[in-house]
Amino acid sequence: MQFADRLNNVETSAIRELFKLLGKPGIISFAGGFPDSAMFDVDGIQAAVNQALAEEAGAALQYGATEGYQPLREQLSQFMASKGAQGVAPENLIVTTGSQQALDLLGKTLISPGDKVIVEGPTFLATIQCFRLYGAQLISAPIDGNGVKTDELEKLIAEHQPKFVYLIPTFGNPSGAMLSLERRKKVLELAVKYQTVVVEDDPYGDLYFGEAPPPSLLNLSATVPGSRELLVHCGSLSKVLSPGLRVGWMIAPADLLAKAIMCKQFSDAHTSTFAQATAAQYLKAGRMPATLAHVRKVYAERAQAMGDALRSDLGDAIEFVQPQGGLFVWARLTGAGGKVADGNVFAKRAIDKGVAFVPGTPFFCAHPDPATLRLSFATADVAKIREGVARLAQAL
Amino acid sequence: MQFADRLNNVETSAIRELFKLLGKPGIISFAGGFPDSAMFDVDGIQAAVNQALAEEAGAALQYGATEGYQPLREQLSQFMASKGAQGVAPENLIVTTGSQQALDLLGKTLISPGDKVIVEGPTFLATIQCFRLYGAQLISAPIDGNGVKTDELEKLIAEHQPKFVYLIPTFGNPSGAMLSLERRKKVLELAVKYQTVVVEDDPYGDLYFGEAPPPSLLNLSATVPGSRELLVHCGSLSKVLSPGLRVGWMIAPADLLAKAIMCKQFSDAHTSTFAQATAAQYLKAGRMPATLAHVRKVYAERAQAMGDALRSDLGDAIEFVQPQGGLFVWARLTGAGGKVADGNVFAKRAIDKGVAFVPGTPFFCAHPDPATLRLSFATADVAKIREGVARLAQAL
Repeated sequence: MQFADRLNNVETSAIRELFKLLGKPGIISFAGGFPDSAMFDVDGIQAAVNQALAEEAGAALQYGATEGYQPLREQLSQFMASKGAQGVAPENLIVTTGSQQALDLLGKTLISPGDKVIVEGPTFLATIQCFRLYGAQLISAPIDGNGVKTDELEKLIAEHQPKFVYLIPTFGNPSGAMLSLERRKKVLELAVKYQTVVVEDDPYGDLYFGEAPPPSLLNLSATVPGSRELLVHCGSLSKVLSPGLRVGWMIAPADLLAKAIMCKQFSDAHTSTFAQATAAQYLKAGRMPATLAHVRKVYAERAQAMGDALRSDLGDAIEFVQPQGGLFVWARLTGAGGKVADGNVFAKRAIDKGVAFVPGTPFFCAHPDPATLRLSFATADVAKIREGVARLAQAL
Repeated sequence: MQFADRLNNVETSAIRELFKLLGKPGIISFAGGFPDSAMFDVDGIQAAVNQALAEEAGAALQYGATEGYQPLREQLSQFMASKGAQGVAPENLIVTTGSQQALDLLGKTLISPGDKVIVEGPTFLATIQCFRLYGAQLISAPIDGNGVKTDELEKLIAEHQPKFVYLIPTFGNPSGAMLSLERRKKVLELAVKYQTVVVEDDPYGDLYFGEAPPPSLLNLSATVPGSRELLVHCGSLSKVLSPGLRVGWMIAPADLLAKAIMCKQFSDAHTSTFAQATAAQYLKAGRMPATLAHVRKVYAERAQAMGDALRSDLGDAIEFVQPQGGLFVWARLTGAGGKVADGNVFAKRAIDKGVAFVPGTPFFCAHPDPATLRLSFATADVAKIREGVARLAQAL
């Protein structure tokens, strides 16, 4: 069978091969990029779906508007307001089938083959593949512990005139980094200065462990004239409530939103109204603050446990910034003391010792740093984290 | 904002403009393409979601495999077997976010800009737009009351060497036509003779009113050597159970399925596991046969009522084949007696008289027949159907 040319731009992920090894008995996995199933508020979701079927079964089971189920759009508008986003009316957002679909719709509406898009190096793997399927030429902007380096970003924007810049500013996958307030302002100023669209993907922003992070680019856009008209913000219930609902949303300027709705009509008609009505009832019931407080507390403990164990067991063979939120520790092997300095080699040795993680190289669209690795602290409890890190030390 | 070039290939549907008029008080609508909400088996779906959350909440609310939730794939494999499809193992199908996503994945995996695709004239509107977004050049194959004319189809295949042929062989939208057994065999023979992929979209095949329709192309492929390797079959729960679940599926040759899974990974990661687990429990509970019997009976009554009323009230001003299944009467204005012969003009007059339908022209990718119209009998009860047709007669 002859496939479309666009498939030549992507390849099946190397991570998939690694995941096949996870079935090994007794393995401790830091490899996943997902929340802990044990923390799902099953009772709350059961109550929400019961309410949806009792009150609005006809609508919850029927076709719905492509742009989203109106009661959910209203709840999401309020949810965004509760997080400090001003002026996000229900009609300023569309519901997407997970935030992955927001990426797909951005690719479909904005990227012509050969267009340039700037992403962080490293960034979310499925973003790289998604945009490449639409023919994007990706440019990698370097990061440090405070997120994307805005000086470098400006140079790249000026040189490449990208179709847009894609960032995960808050506890990003895989970097876990938190973009500083100063840099956030700078990003918005760059958007205006170069009239470049900026996409803020924000699935992790609610998962902070101590103080709240700096305001999102969306929230800050109120203070940088002209930036809101160039800003796209993607949100998701996947990391805080349930990935299985596949409920995400995208806030964007009206003209882009209209095109995205048209494309979504021909992508999946609309997101499951059954899931949307359930999510809307969940938000309406006011359960989200307690749910957020719970997941923050548990992930904070696990992040601390992993950071402590890494420092204690691996010492100067590894360096990382202790994450202040999210699901990930992004680390770098130093090679100190003649220890292994290649993430791919280390990953294979670690599997032999009974612990898994993802090496960092696939997360770079260019110039990979082979010493990097991503460790998720989300799905193992504190005891398992300590044991897993001890095994990592043996694999060094 | 500068959008992707592919958006130049499509335009917002003319039907959307019409639908804005449907809010008019007291209007009777034959315009929709959806099932009647009053027939949803709410109790059965409530029981299914309860079971899913009681038995498998962790999986139902978590990320899932891109190719589909395994218990649902197993149930769908059995469902297909119960409909006479042989050898459809769970791994021969993927779950899609409605069958609309199957179309999108076919476009993404198969269509390079400029590739030719043959569709029926008329065909499903969202198919036309979906494939055009991927740059397809659509070729229109004429139909009659027995579906696509296979002699004409062969000429078009030979001339255009299309990437694939897309058909809705059983009670298609909008034509309602049922492809004859003889033509079904011929289509499969053409696939083999010209080594052309054939896509069978089959959301309506279960909605027959009297005798079962001829076997699907999928079922028949067992009798035409080499045809199964060129056949794609798309199914959906939307018309028989609930569109709001957004659960469809695609059966395809292994190499195509692998590419579609890769593309789906970057489209929406996976279809809602919450909806998939609910659908799986529904099928497992054995409720589907009774549900199908019920919807067949109700739609059969409505189709009969609409056919009778059209013959009685509009006489020779209209011609149509009485549908033997599905949701639609596809009709043609004859202009007899100097009556209106243009579907678009008639649609506007009908709105003024308090009844809505969709004119036929948007359903053609080329050579539209302006005398055509689509009437859905699905959502109005028999009394409303008679009243609506009486109003149509006044609008003639």
